[in-house]
Amino acid sequence: MIYFDNAASSWPKPGGVTKAMENYLNDFSANPGRSGHKLARQAGNVVLGTRQRLAALINSPSSERIVFTLNATEALNTAILGSVETQDHVITTTMEHNSVLRPLNYAAKQGVEVEIITCNRNGLVDPDKIRSAIKQNTKLIAVGHASNVTGSIQPIEEIGEIARGADIPFLLDAAQTAGAVPIDVQKQNVSLLAITGHKSLLGPQGTGALYVADGLTVNPLKYGGTGSYSELEEQPFEFPDYLESGTLNGVGIAGLGAALSYIEERGLSEIINYKKNLVYQLINGLKGINNIQIYGHVNGVETVPVVSFSVSGCDSSEIAFILDSVYDMAVRPGLHCAPLAHKTIGTFPEGTIRVSLSVFNTKDEVAAFISAIKEIVKDMT
Amino acid sequence: MIYFDNAASSWPKPGGVTKAMENYLNDFSANPGRSGHKLARQAGNVVLGTRQRLAALINSPSSERIVFTLNATEALNTAILGSVETQDHVITTTMEHNSVLRPLNYAAKQGVEVEIITCNRNGLVDPDKIRSAIKQNTKLIAVGHASNVTGSIQPIEEIGEIARGADIPFLLDAAQTAGAVPIDVQKQNVSLLAITGHKSLLGPQGTGALYVADGLTVNPLKYGGTGSYSELEEQPFEFPDYLESGTLNGVGIAGLGAALSYIEERGLSEIINYKKNLVYQLINGLKGINNIQIYGHVNGVETVPVVSFSVSGCDSSEIAFILDSVYDMAVRPGLHCAPLAHKTIGTFPEGTIRVSLSVFNTKDEVAAFISAIKEIVKDMT
Repeated sequence: MIYFDNAASSWPKPGGVTKAMENYLNDFSANPGRSGHKLARQAGNVVLGTRQRLAALINSPSSERIVFTLNATEALNTAILGSVETQDHVITTTMEHNSVLRPLNYAAKQGVEVEIITCNRNGLVDPDKIRSAIKQNTKLIAVGHASNVTGSIQPIEEIGEIARGADIPFLLDAAQTAGAVPIDVQKQNVSLLAITGHKSLLGPQGTGALYVADGLTVNPLKYGGTGSYSELEEQPFEFPDYLESGTLNGVGIAGLGAALSYIEERGLSEIINYKKNLVYQLINGLKGINNIQIYGHVNGVETVPVVSFSVSGCDSSEIAFILDSVYDMAVRPGLHCAPLAHKTIGTFPEGTIRVSLSVFNTKDEVAAFISAIKEIVKDMT
Repeated sequence: MIYFDNAASSWPKPGGVTKAMENYLNDFSANPGRSGHKLARQAGNVVLGTRQRLAALINSPSSERIVFTLNATEALNTAILGSVETQDHVITTTMEHNSVLRPLNYAAKQGVEVEIITCNRNGLVDPDKIRSAIKQNTKLIAVGHASNVTGSIQPIEEIGEIARGADIPFLLDAAQTAGAVPIDVQKQNVSLLAITGHKSLLGPQGTGALYVADGLTVNPLKYGGTGSYSELEEQPFEFPDYLESGTLNGVGIAGLGAALSYIEERGLSEIINYKKNLVYQLINGLKGINNIQIYGHVNGVETVPVVSFSVSGCDSSEIAFILDSVYDMAVRPGLHCAPLAHKTIGTFPEGTIRVSLSVFNTKDEVAAFISAIKEIVKDMT
């Protein structure tokens, strides 16, 4: 199997991930932060280690402001629903994933004013449009760092500046970028950062995190046992406990820690360059095939290793089906949980074929994919 | 290490758990329910398999009504905060964990009327008190199946009958009972059941579930990508997707499936009997030591294998510290995230020493523990 669905979930994982999870499960697996005995302390140390690695990755001033979640969706819901109230105004874009648009849609029903800035056909937002949209009651600017459809990276430095200037929290959805693009929450003026562990961070499913800037707070989505302040019937207001009710996914967090250690050792810039070369090869190859249209990936715009394309007159799902069944290659066709993004780039409702690469893909795999697409297109058109 | 902290998180796990997680991670680990290719289908099948096993375990009429969550706390928050609105009335008890009391406390601040029925000194609720508390606006009855402090099992059949008679949803917190006590949501008239995977179900941390009875619905806590109905900007109203936004903890759910299969093979009643004998041995041993008081565990009341005790004049934390550091035995002292339960049984704020057993504990371990406690008490008193 040649696996090109890394934007949905990356596979394979670095060898250390399985090992770390196995160790956690077999050697201790007690409840981190709940009891004082050796095994609970070992589990707690593993969780702390991953928290610190994540903090370092995004340059968070402290690890306490990294809150573990089930996935990026939970982080985004906490950031959005924990920040805005009836009559507040929120700014977002048409390139967002349903994990941003659906909680905002719910918020809108509760009386929150949601303003969705239309991006251009390449999926890029104009920061000036965000600046102009700011109102007295704007309480949040929520933007996806990179589109999961086109891969285009938004001009977040400019958006961060605008948000800081207006003193509005800036929520960055890093589901596609954590582990794929350098992130510095301090330099980039990011107030809330939603992370998933199982995509470019190469960790296991069931791991995610929300960074909350110092001095900022959001209301919890969930209340419950935190291991700390057991005597209080109210949620203790101390990070990260305040937003981390219930037992954490310790074993998953152990795996994520090992994945982060792999990224540290190999080096993020080396990983980025490696994948850039594959994307370059892929796009060049696809451009040589008749009737193929690639979305985004315009000159001068940085991207993550996600390439969406369509073939005139051919159904994307059928191509994906042939790729899977005949060529043993996994891609993802359709709308990728981002209907407005497809409307923006002009591919709604038919969607696109999305190829998303990982650091474990190779030039040979990309070459094989291009040959396969050539054959399929030839047969279908 | 002799591990007696299974009510916090069970350890060790059946061998199949690590193996299933390793297979998932190494062999596919794609996003269940997101793409149509082989690996995504394999991942999806694993998730479906665990869903079906859980449904069978609690006699849910269909597996679609089993919603996966990060933990029991998330399940409880969804059940509570998704069911009640301002001016509704909720009935609960003083024996509840903070994962029930803290969301209710939050709800109370939003104008929900929360009535907390005082249990007796053994931690048992009188069903008649629940019946008498029902009002016109009662929208939920939330009760813990077994206390995580005393282990006592509440008279849930009677409570279920009362709830059914009054047509009020009955939320059962099965954090301590799923995998430890037979549960039949249909016979017991349970409308909402909160489950954790990493305690008596012997699965990994990061797994939990909420059962929602047919015909009943609760509002989601989180909105986002469900893999289904990508074109909708609104949350699709279809179970389990409606309450399962974002990528599931596929690898954890794979582990939970293996744990459930272990329980099926060994047989729940055999497991229950095995642990009952250990509890009997433990209580008899403790009763033979001077100055020890055991809470709950009265004649005629069924329990889970959780035993709380204190030693007059001795600090519980100190005893736990000695058990850990000198005897290499893990127990959990303190309030166990259940302050009202300790107030109910008269052990607030000092708490108790909690011993919680698993099917992997042995008679020899229990005997060693009793000897250790004898020595410690002798030295300290």
